[in-house]
Amino acid sequence: MRLLVANPNTTPQVTELCARAARAVASPGTEILPVTGRFGAEIINSRAENAIAAHAMLEMLAEHAPGADVVLLAVSYDTGLLAAREVLSVPVVGMTEASMLSACLLGTSFGLVTFGTPTVYRELVALYGLTDRLAGIRSIVASPKDAYADPATVDAKVADAAAALVEETGAEVAVLCGAAMAGMPARIADRVPVPVIDGIAAGVGLCEMLVKLKAAKAKVGSLAHPGMRPTVGLAAPLSALLKGG
Amino acid sequence: MRLLVANPNTTPQVTELCARAARAVASPGTEILPVTGRFGAEIINSRAENAIAAHAMLEMLAEHAPGADVVLLAVSYDTGLLAAREVLSVPVVGMTEASMLSACLLGTSFGLVTFGTPTVYRELVALYGLTDRLAGIRSIVASPKDAYADPATVDAKVADAAAALVEETGAEVAVLCGAAMAGMPARIADRVPVPVIDGIAAGVGLCEMLVKLKAAKAKVGSLAHPGMRPTVGLAAPLSALLKGG
Amino acid sequence: MRLLVANPNTTPQVTELCARAARAVASPGTEILPVTGRFGAEIINSRAENAIAAHAMLEMLAEHAPGADVVLLAVSYDTGLLAAREVLSVPVVGMTEASMLSACLLGTSFGLVTFGTPTVYRELVALYGLTDRLAGIRSIVASPKDAYADPATVDAKVADAAAALVEETGAEVAVLCGAAMAGMPARIADRVPVPVIDGIAAGVGLCEMLVKLKAAKAKVGSLAHPGMRPTVGLAAPLSALLKGG
Amino acid sequence: MRLLVANPNTTPQVTELCARAARAVASPGTEILPVTGRFGAEIINSRAENAIAAHAMLEMLAEHAPGADVVLLAVSYDTGLLAAREVLSVPVVGMTEASMLSACLLGTSFGLVTFGTPTVYRELVALYGLTDRLAGIRSIVASPKDAYADPATVDAKVADAAAALVEETGAEVAVLCGAAMAGMPARIADRVPVPVIDGIAAGVGLCEMLVKLKAAKAKVGSLAHPGMRPTVGLAAPLSALLKGG
Amino acid sequence: MRLLVANPNTTPQVTELCARAARAVASPGTEILPVTGRFGAEIINSRAENAIAAHAMLEMLAEHAPGADVVLLAVSYDTGLLAAREVLSVPVVGMTEASMLSACLLGTSFGLVTFGTPTVYRELVALYGLTDRLAGIRSIVASPKDAYADPATVDAKVADAAAALVEETGAEVAVLCGAAMAGMPARIADRVPVPVIDGIAAGVGLCEMLVKLKAAKAKVGSLAHPGMRPTVGLAAPLSALLKGG
Amino acid sequence: MRLLVANPNTTPQVTELCARAARAVASPGTEILPVTGRFGAEIINSRAENAIAAHAMLEMLAEHAPGADVVLLAVSYDTGLLAAREVLSVPVVGMTEASMLSACLLGTSFGLVTFGTPTVYRELVALYGLTDRLAGIRSIVASPKDAYADPATVDAKVADAAAALVEETGAEVAVLCGAAMAGMPARIADRVPVPVIDGIAAGVGLCEMLVKLKAAKAKVGSLAHPGMRPTVGLAAPLSALLKGG
Repeated sequence: MRLLVANPNTTPQVTELCARAARAVASPGTEILPVTGRFGAEIINSRAENAIAAHAMLEMLAEHAPGADVVLLAVSYDTGLLAAREVLSVPVVGMTEASMLSACLLGTSFGLVTFGTPTVYRELVALYGLTDRLAGIRSIVASPKDAYADPATVDAKVADAAAALVEETGAEVAVLCGAAMAGMPARIADRVPVPVIDGIAAGVGLCEMLVKLKAAKAKVGSLAHPGMRPTVGLAAPLSALLKGG
Repeated sequence: MRLLVANPNTTPQVTELCARAARAVASPGTEILPVTGRFGAEIINSRAENAIAAHAMLEMLAEHAPGADVVLLAVSYDTGLLAAREVLSVPVVGMTEASMLSACLLGTSFGLVTFGTPTVYRELVALYGLTDRLAGIRSIVASPKDAYADPATVDAKVADAAAALVEETGAEVAVLCGAAMAGMPARIADRVPVPVIDGIAAGVGLCEMLVKLKAAKAKVGSLAHPGMRPTVGLAAPLSALLKGG
Repeated sequence: MRLLVANPNTTPQVTELCARAARAVASPGTEILPVTGRFGAEIINSRAENAIAAHAMLEMLAEHAPGADVVLLAVSYDTGLLAAREVLSVPVVGMTEASMLSACLLGTSFGLVTFGTPTVYRELVALYGLTDRLAGIRSIVASPKDAYADPATVDAKVADAAAALVEETGAEVAVLCGAAMAGMPARIADRVPVPVIDGIAAGVGLCEMLVKLKAAKAKVGSLAHPGMRPTVGLAAPLSALLKGG
Repeated sequence: MRLLVANPNTTPQVTELCARAARAVASPGTEILPVTGRFGAEIINSRAENAIAAHAMLEMLAEHAPGADVVLLAVSYDTGLLAAREVLSVPVVGMTEASMLSACLLGTSFGLVTFGTPTVYRELVALYGLTDRLAGIRSIVASPKDAYADPATVDAKVADAAAALVEETGAEVAVLCGAAMAGMPARIADRVPVPVIDGIAAGVGLCEMLVKLKAAKAKVGSLAHPGMRPTVGLAAPLSALLKGG
Repeated sequence: MRLLVANPNTTPQVTELCARAARAVASPGTEILPVTGRFGAEIINSRAENAIAAHAMLEMLAEHAPGADVVLLAVSYDTGLLAAREVLSVPVVGMTEASMLSACLLGTSFGLVTFGTPTVYRELVALYGLTDRLAGIRSIVASPKDAYADPATVDAKVADAAAALVEETGAEVAVLCGAAMAGMPARIADRVPVPVIDGIAAGVGLCEMLVKLKAAKAKVGSLAHPGMRPTVGLAAPLSALLKGG
Repeated sequence: MRLLVANPNTTPQVTELCARAARAVASPGTEILPVTGRFGAEIINSRAENAIAAHAMLEMLAEHAPGADVVLLAVSYDTGLLAAREVLSVPVVGMTEASMLSACLLGTSFGLVTFGTPTVYRELVALYGLTDRLAGIRSIVASPKDAYADPATVDAKVADAAAALVEETGAEVAVLCGAAMAGMPARIADRVPVPVIDGIAAGVGLCEMLVKLKAAKAKVGSLAHPGMRPTVGLAAPLSALLKGG
């Protein structure tokens, strides 16, 4: 099984971190293929950057998805998820979607810990129809880069935020919502009184599950490939993908 | 990995069908352990039968879950799911919960095809907070027993119902909602224009994912074990389980 | 009118307290018939105990409902309510359902004061479709047994919690949510600035109202009796009830 | 117990019909006191007429509620319900509110049959927070006056509409939603496969229940009397009522 | 363009303040026509007063709307909005409705600052279907009269409440919700870190937009004029308006 | 007032149609400045095309918004709306958002008529928090290009779909949802029994209203400019805009 880990941030270290975390949980026989975005923000953390990154994501997938069996989006905004699901013929999983759906199997509600803006994540939860299971969101004052530079400090902030979420909102699972938090649950689990999960680990598991399900690509509906569509000024593989090629 | 497949219907053939479907998708190294309920309805299909079966489920799990790494409830009502999740220390997955969460990875909405009463499944969808993603429910006029006796006829009814759901409600995934439909998606996929999934296959995949996540048991909240509780008149293993033993 | 007060906790003192509270508000001509569960938890306070108690409730009703005109469930979880409503031919009212619906006649929102876990009551409110009218829930640190042993202390805790709910959430009615709080509103009303109600008093009034309405039993839908159903290993009256006998 | 039946339609025959239906279900010792609106539409059936009728209702209650123990609004729009509840010191029940809350005790969802505009009733259901339990609404082509002139024909239309609601929407209770339908359930019950209820019968029962509860008037919140308020140009009793006199 | 500014409070100073604020933002060629209610509360601030004021509003519009091109309701409860929209042939805009819809163009959520009861405004937001965009409501301890007598003090209170709403709830727009706050945004904008708007300014803009749209009056639905309706005891112009004259 | 009409479809005829419709309703003194996207689909009609177009939109706005007072997005998907609102200092209005908010002033519910996929518009309605006011969506079988080539035929299809929406769903306003439908309401209004509006006309009016409101740019929240952000490989004006330049 070839599992593409697609990171639209233009920072290769984020890709590497995610790939390492993915390999740590992948089943024997699952090959992890990491790729990084060509243009856009170094670290996506605004609506505009995320909008641009969706284009970068599609361009990247048009080039690299052929040959892969499944795709995991390694970005906490699940950038371009539905667009990718529409045009690709293999399953696509977003890391935040993965962590939230997995959290649903472990508790009646979940809380999110993020580096970013709660409103944007709340919109993502609503898009996925999971608002009723969201207990709350806590943003921590740290950047993804801090997570690489000083993991112990960021681990402590995340653990504190997760414990506070549980205490104040009754969250029954803590979801770590950021590519830079990949692999962190194992380090902080004993500081949080509920299950702690992250999107890369959950996402790899769900990707493997989907490949085994062998479910067919939709032929109708909003995720069917729209078919032959003329475009202007796009990279050749992307243009070909939109043409259904 | 030892995966307990727990069927509270008192009909061993249902257990066998589910076990066979589970083995068909399980990873190498996953052992499927099927068990059947001791008392209650032969085929659960009413609120009262389901209420009684939750007791049977807990009694069965009290006896058989020790030694298992994860539990899959092989009954479309996900009978006793939250109660089992509360008292057991290993992950527990309901087959209908599993199919609906997996469907969320394949389409923006899903439809259910069942042998039973739509209202009860609608309540289950609401309990899981997934109402926004439910496109509709279709009941077919057939019993689980028909599914064993005359699979081709029941396959056709299910395929027709799934196709009608897609046509009329815009459902983007068809979820087959019944233990007796385990294994059916492969046979009818080409008659339905969207992905078709069933709970046993999805559930086995999610069980394997959860075991790999190694998430801790909740110590607080509504799914923490409530601790030392005196009871009267219960089977010894169940009484011990409630005592936290 | 014969009104069955059915308590699935296996503690007869709870039954007696509820029966006394019921007799205090019953109309002349209403006979209160209390019964107690045969097996399960002494005081139900977890999901697993509640699941087991639903079986005990149905077994108890199968034996005692014949001859009664209406049934009041004397347990704050409304254990087995919909299952009982499905198989019995007389009306069935849950005490918490009763208090919440009555609260809707007295304020635009209500708050719950309980001995138990907020999450489970929140699920009950959602099952009844009343989430929009729920202002909040407060759990008090006391057990039902404390309520019998030291009523003045527990009264004070409940009154304080109710007043805090009003202050902090804007709740316009305080609902006391526990069989052990039967009769408490009269003692604490002057310490809470909004109406205070409990489930036994409200439930008796609603039972009397339903009997006078003489509404017919549903012949279709999720609360119609499912008809002839074979079962294994159940008490004879329950087995007969499920057979529609 | 003195129960005021307040009809803001300026048609005394509607008042009489409601009073007769109320007396038919009232307990011994409950005295029914009917009153009719002084100004406004003969039969309220538009938003503007209903807005005007709320003033007429308050004027009528200011004059007649003193001396009554409880008030039942005999108009399917529950005209002025929350305003009346705010300024009166005795409980106030709307007939449609009453029928919907009672329906919640008999089925998991209810359907409404009305003479009027579905949108307005849908707004009322939403105001009461009961949208999740509404299966659907059917308007029949007939006027309240037809109901008096040719009851058999209107009975048939209502019965057909109720049966269609059950068939098409899965409604588990049929609520007859119009003052002119008071007393109709007994005549059509055998033509509808689920319980049928009307607002006057349900309302009288709920009024009696509330009087027995002896719940206190709210001192805070949106239904507390706002206290000393100067007004211009109102009838003297209404002016006095708003002054808290 | 003739724009009627209709204030159902019986206090002419409120009308004048609103007219002044309306003229300050009106386009050249828009004539502002202010009118004041004939009966009811000096300042509407309770459910009963608001119910009575809806009648006063309709009476006032029946007399003054003929000749106007559009109507702005100058009262924060949007008193009688849907009733007016039903019977008039020109567009009608409520000032609070206007400010909330305009806020939707400036932020993903809005908060309300009012002189009144949060519950009643929350019901208004729900009636408009905007609950998902409401971040919160803050009431300030001041009366509309204070706003005229001591504007600096009230400005400070409103600015503080708006800033607190933003801080505590994440509101992305602050909506000032009271006729007496007309014109206040310009004075406090630099003390609040998000856009601040009031209903009169927003309402005038939306009235002008609607007149330019030249959309037709609904001929069907809940806002179509119900046609010939006999009434009793109403002012002649209102009686004529209800007759469709 | 300079009003930028930004069309991310790479088809200049769509831009021209929208500009013409905008000029037809603009106030004297409002200058319409049309611009067309540089890359992407000729006519956006899929999720992937829309994702790419958001990048094109932001690039176009980075170049052309400086000097404009307000921006109207001339694309029925409101492509890149929140991202544009985040990074620009002037107000931004989406044409579909505009038509839906305006519809809220004319009816209690609205229906959408589109050339595209209902699911995607439904997600847009949900993002705006307006689901409760959506009566339904009808797609017509025609392309935007047909609307230019054979307007009479497309007018008839749209009018029929709008009338059917009203009949079947009770929609009280018909919203024409497509840039190619700009200006159509005037032609079909007499074939539809409720108000008909389109996004360009409504959008121009709302843009003018917002400019007059002079509301400040948010300094906090999800629509504040995120400040200095390094990027890679973007067009110079867009890179500068993201840097806050």
